[in-house]
Amino acid sequence: MGESLKRYEALAHDLAESIRCGVLRAGEKLPSVREASARRGVSASTVFQAYYLLEAQGLIRARDRSGYYVVHGTATMPPEPEPPVHIDPDSNVVDVSSQVFEMLESIRQREVVPFGSAFPDPALFPMAKLGQVMASTIRQLDPWQAVDDLSPGNAQLRRQIALRYQVDGMAVTPDDIVITNGALEALNLCLGAVTRPGDTVIVESPTFYAALQSLERLGLRAIEVPAHPREGIDLAALARALAQHQPAACWLMTSFQNPLGSLMPEPKKRELVALLARHGVPLIEDDVYAELYFGANRPAPAKAFDTQGLVMHCGSFSKSLAPGYRVGWAVPGRFFRAVARHKLSTSLSTSMPAQAAIAAYLERGGYDRHLRALRHELSVRQGQMMAAVGARFPAGARATRPAGGYFLWVELPGEIDTRMLHRQALAAGISIAPGPMFSSHPRFLNCLRLNYGHAWDMRAEAAFARLGGLIHAMC
Amino acid sequence: MGESLKRYEALAHDLAESIRCGVLRAGEKLPSVREASARRGVSASTVFQAYYLLEAQGLIRARDRSGYYVVHGTATMPPEPEPPVHIDPDSNVVDVSSQVFEMLESIRQREVVPFGSAFPDPALFPMAKLGQVMASTIRQLDPWQAVDDLSPGNAQLRRQIALRYQVDGMAVTPDDIVITNGALEALNLCLGAVTRPGDTVIVESPTFYAALQSLERLGLRAIEVPAHPREGIDLAALARALAQHQPAACWLMTSFQNPLGSLMPEPKKRELVALLARHGVPLIEDDVYAELYFGANRPAPAKAFDTQGLVMHCGSFSKSLAPGYRVGWAVPGRFFRAVARHKLSTSLSTSMPAQAAIAAYLERGGYDRHLRALRHELSVRQGQMMAAVGARFPAGARATRPAGGYFLWVELPGEIDTRMLHRQALAAGISIAPGPMFSSHPRFLNCLRLNYGHAWDMRAEAAFARLGGLIHAMC
Repeated sequence: MGESLKRYEALAHDLAESIRCGVLRAGEKLPSVREASARRGVSASTVFQAYYLLEAQGLIRARDRSGYYVVHGTATMPPEPEPPVHIDPDSNVVDVSSQVFEMLESIRQREVVPFGSAFPDPALFPMAKLGQVMASTIRQLDPWQAVDDLSPGNAQLRRQIALRYQVDGMAVTPDDIVITNGALEALNLCLGAVTRPGDTVIVESPTFYAALQSLERLGLRAIEVPAHPREGIDLAALARALAQHQPAACWLMTSFQNPLGSLMPEPKKRELVALLARHGVPLIEDDVYAELYFGANRPAPAKAFDTQGLVMHCGSFSKSLAPGYRVGWAVPGRFFRAVARHKLSTSLSTSMPAQAAIAAYLERGGYDRHLRALRHELSVRQGQMMAAVGARFPAGARATRPAGGYFLWVELPGEIDTRMLHRQALAAGISIAPGPMFSSHPRFLNCLRLNYGHAWDMRAEAAFARLGGLIHAMC
Repeated sequence: MGESLKRYEALAHDLAESIRCGVLRAGEKLPSVREASARRGVSASTVFQAYYLLEAQGLIRARDRSGYYVVHGTATMPPEPEPPVHIDPDSNVVDVSSQVFEMLESIRQREVVPFGSAFPDPALFPMAKLGQVMASTIRQLDPWQAVDDLSPGNAQLRRQIALRYQVDGMAVTPDDIVITNGALEALNLCLGAVTRPGDTVIVESPTFYAALQSLERLGLRAIEVPAHPREGIDLAALARALAQHQPAACWLMTSFQNPLGSLMPEPKKRELVALLARHGVPLIEDDVYAELYFGANRPAPAKAFDTQGLVMHCGSFSKSLAPGYRVGWAVPGRFFRAVARHKLSTSLSTSMPAQAAIAAYLERGGYDRHLRALRHELSVRQGQMMAAVGARFPAGARATRPAGGYFLWVELPGEIDTRMLHRQALAAGISIAPGPMFSSHPRFLNCLRLNYGHAWDMRAEAAFARLGGLIHAMC
């Protein structure tokens, strides 16, 4: 069953790619189920499942008795944002914390519809199963585990994480891994290991606000390099920034970037790693959405192309398995020792029962089955929200079409200030993440990030209609 | 039963105090059980239990048929260290990490006898019971808890912690508390909230090496103020340091300091708070050993005398209930908001299952019963190691006699370098914590910290004899 699930997803992915890059154009008819089945060498049921998925994603639509047609590009789907204008990036002192903290407060209220949330829908995770595993693990736990699990962390868990890298063809061993209190701590430890106050650090623009907050806290200056909404950071602009400034590090999300959802193609990742290596600049690679791909395979991280040990790869189980457990990790390459010690002297170790439970869960199997179901559900929810953007937002609104993760980035037409929209929406019980949260400059005023990871139920639909109404009124 | 346990411990504590301050002198006979019972209005069995405890602590000894006598001051008990010489403290760049990390590596090996360990004996904690509570808690956990438990943390747990403050007469509410990944994170968050790189911070001398590491990592300068082996930091020297330097903060352990085991008397704590308030200097109060008192009551922290919100009180369950769970907290006074936000942007939240399990354990009751047994056991083990110091170490060795915690601080006679002793001992499978770990200056060369919290079994006794032999050979 796991097998056929994977096959139909692979097919759906290929077709979605063909649609996205224009090989299959709007209004075009898809091959019949019989044709596709023969051509691909898969069962008719696999094709049916793939078509159902694409339909749920809003990419194709069935017409009575005549088959499936591509809807992409029609009125129901908003166009993608334009690539960024090439401006030369400048370094900037960071001061975003207040607006971010206010925003975070608002999404903690359960009665608020969480379009602005950074967190995945907790209902998507096997919390009960994890609880069972934790319960049986904790009862067998050797008390000395508390000492054994000190940084770099639980050996069994590091082995399980290393295994997943190895399956993807990466030579990461348990001894390369430091377990952390979530990816956020991993990223902060990596940043602390390679910077000194006053240094400059390159980030994307727009970028994850927590990166800006970390820079702010450590007294670092940000150099924001524009990112392409589909393919990530602009390498030419990055090259100029590297030549002009002497950055201490570069902090990027290479796959399903928050907030854009952009995915750097593999050749671009390879080029990125080579470029940074020429300048001797470490890359802090935030890869927390790595497992949430809608395609056939996990996209390789930049770390896969790292021959110098300069890429500090950070991952987490918070978005893929166990939100709230606070278990993440870093593979800090040549900075391993600094990061492991840094961890020891800032928080000693990661919670022992959480480490042990996740290690035991991974060992038992079932993680990949859970992930397939999770990805499927997220890709369906993306289609639902994308269609709603097309239907409810004004013409001229643009939205990214991420191939993974659970964020849309929307550009609104005209002079709309999404900070004002945020306040109005919140008064109506709806949260959004306004664009200016994602930059240390006053940029992205007309943009917002939407979380499509929560259930698309009547409440969400009504809230989205209301949000659309507020935007129309502001136009 | 809980009641009588407390009563005999109170009696033992009073007698121990009388012995420590010289009211009962070496060789003096204690009142007979009948006399003491009548005089104190307690049962004979309570007196017996108190005498057994004092005997186990090595403070009194039974002579056949004639009763109990004070042994303090005889050959079996080493004298206390001298108070520190009054030197004016100077600020210093901190660079202790390498020796500390090497030391930490050595104590992680289970085959090494852990006299140098900073960790309590894991066998002293109700790990199985905690596991049970966690198992039943985790199965009922609402998935949304992951969002609810973001900094400042689990509301139920903050309520339970606030209750314990309130029982001690302190007006701490749940809204004053930030849950952290252990006390070490709490301390680091507090330090980060009130300092900027280049600032100076006052610490004790000797001081807990993790404080020095935190200063080092944040680019802060340390001002080490001498501490009295029994009563903590020298207030006159502190006053001079405050007048001379403009420190950004003061980081102290006011009860059962690591490494000295010193306990600041309450009037001194009150004076400390008033002195710092006059200078407007925040006190970061590391109070992780607070629950490990051998006396009748928990010593009041400096926080109890804080009327300005300048004391940032940090606690933990790692030494008293749940090592490895990594659950601690800060009560940061007027810096609450900064610390809570700082936590949110460095590690988001503390592991949800660990928070929930400890909250549920505290709610069920049984914590105080566990603590009484824990304190009893530690006080007995202190006596055992103290007697071994007297018997095995050379004449002229001095040792502190802490009224709580699980560390002895030993001063060896002559020119012994405990870093060399550390290497020799480690080769023999024994760890110690050499004095120079506890200062940014080359001080305390002839000192060492010993952990008496582990079982005093044949292995420990043999190792202690071996350690004594090594010291004799170095004399």
